[in-house]
Amino acid sequence: MEDRQDAYGHEIFDYLKGKPAVEVVERDDGFINAGAGAAAYFGKFKEWDASERRAMAYARGRVLDIGCGAGRHSLYLQGKGFDVMGIDLSPLSVRVSRLRGVRKVRNLSITQLEPSLGTFDTLLMMGNNFGLFASFKRARRLLRTFQRMTSSKGRIIAQSLDPYKTTDRFHLAYQKRNRRRGRMSGQVKIRIRYRGYIGPWFDYLLVSRTEMKEIVRGTGWKIGRFISSKGPSYVAVMSKERVGLVSRSLGGSNQAG
Amino acid sequence: MEDRQDAYGHEIFDYLKGKPAVEVVERDDGFINAGAGAAAYFGKFKEWDASERRAMAYARGRVLDIGCGAGRHSLYLQGKGFDVMGIDLSPLSVRVSRLRGVRKVRNLSITQLEPSLGTFDTLLMMGNNFGLFASFKRARRLLRTFQRMTSSKGRIIAQSLDPYKTTDRFHLAYQKRNRRRGRMSGQVKIRIRYRGYIGPWFDYLLVSRTEMKEIVRGTGWKIGRFISSKGPSYVAVMSKERVGLVSRSLGGSNQAG
Repeated sequence: MEDRQDAYGHEIFDYLKGKPAVEVVERDDGFINAGAGAAAYFGKFKEWDASERRAMAYARGRVLDIGCGAGRHSLYLQGKGFDVMGIDLSPLSVRVSRLRGVRKVRNLSITQLEPSLGTFDTLLMMGNNFGLFASFKRARRLLRTFQRMTSSKGRIIAQSLDPYKTTDRFHLAYQKRNRRRGRMSGQVKIRIRYRGYIGPWFDYLLVSRTEMKEIVRGTGWKIGRFISSKGPSYVAVMSKERVGLVSRSLGGSNQAG
Repeated sequence: MEDRQDAYGHEIFDYLKGKPAVEVVERDDGFINAGAGAAAYFGKFKEWDASERRAMAYARGRVLDIGCGAGRHSLYLQGKGFDVMGIDLSPLSVRVSRLRGVRKVRNLSITQLEPSLGTFDTLLMMGNNFGLFASFKRARRLLRTFQRMTSSKGRIIAQSLDPYKTTDRFHLAYQKRNRRRGRMSGQVKIRIRYRGYIGPWFDYLLVSRTEMKEIVRGTGWKIGRFISSKGPSYVAVMSKERVGLVSRSLGGSNQAG
């Protein structure tokens, strides 16, 4: 990602330097909105939504924070004694996370993750970063890759936002357009803009709980629980499927017997 | 202006209906920013900048509020007993102003103003609405039209923003580009966006005090005083030029004599 594209990174870098900073999120149908503002990405644990705070209790072992942004989750877990590595596509996010004290941060996209990074016990996708899976197909492919990057007790803690919890006519029309095009309703094509910086267009996947279950089915992961919030966002805690492995073993035994 | 273009109007209409609403301002070089947010357009007198409050003391007689928006200046002056007419290009702004109690509002652009609307004693261009003059040339043409729409004691109370009071590299580069193209440094081409609504591109003119003096010179108006703020914005109070009329009369006498 070139510097002129690093809109999100510049936003949080400016905020770190004491300037007020708000990103703009533009969707490919022309819908636009001021974002949460940089302050939200710097919030301390006690300021987080209750669902996010509860989700942290499921972290264990070596943690990979996918799309770490300004590093708020990494910093919290690092402070709790976890071995944390953050990754972010945005070069300036990596810099901001480092400046704020995250000890291990790499400038990597979710698609660049591979087993050579070592084995993790927890993969964190907070801040609606289940969205980084981008599409049904890519989600399933990456979930399989994640199998090979995680220990047998590996977990995924992933936040999403249920796109159907809206009455907004622009959103409903957009979802309909998506379905007509064979995309998931909540597969939004967006870009981040901040002052003169314009990020590249990317797909970000918002799913209902039911849709998330469909995506996960057969990838070796199972959703152990959903942690709800008062709004449309929620957190899923996934673990590795044991039942599947057992039944496959049994199947093997049966065939052999 | 079609409804789908009335981004500003929808913003303030939503806010009136109790929804949080923030407009996005996009410049033609790709620079983008979240705007002031609708709340700013609904602020009560005591919440205004001191320079705006002081400016109101110069209002007299029949008042025309040019680009009245949500009607905050019209409502204040109407409440003080002035006969006020608001105009705005945005149909929904007209509706919002009416709903809030502005008694006379018309859906008109600044370029549609003409003496048939009657004679005004005060023309108000607050909220940086000197910008509605759009360019050096159009400003001078409209200032001459304003002569014919105002009483002999007519005043213009106009707010602008000094574009040179910035160190932002995007703004400085844009100003340079403008000068290269023969435009005034602060002649910004922008559009307002709000959710799915996209306003038309328009020129908005930001000038220094010196530039404002140059624009006004020879139009029959003179700037009586500038009211400064702590920031880059300021208010000019203009009245009709008497000296010019006198010297022209003298000139006539001399030629006749």
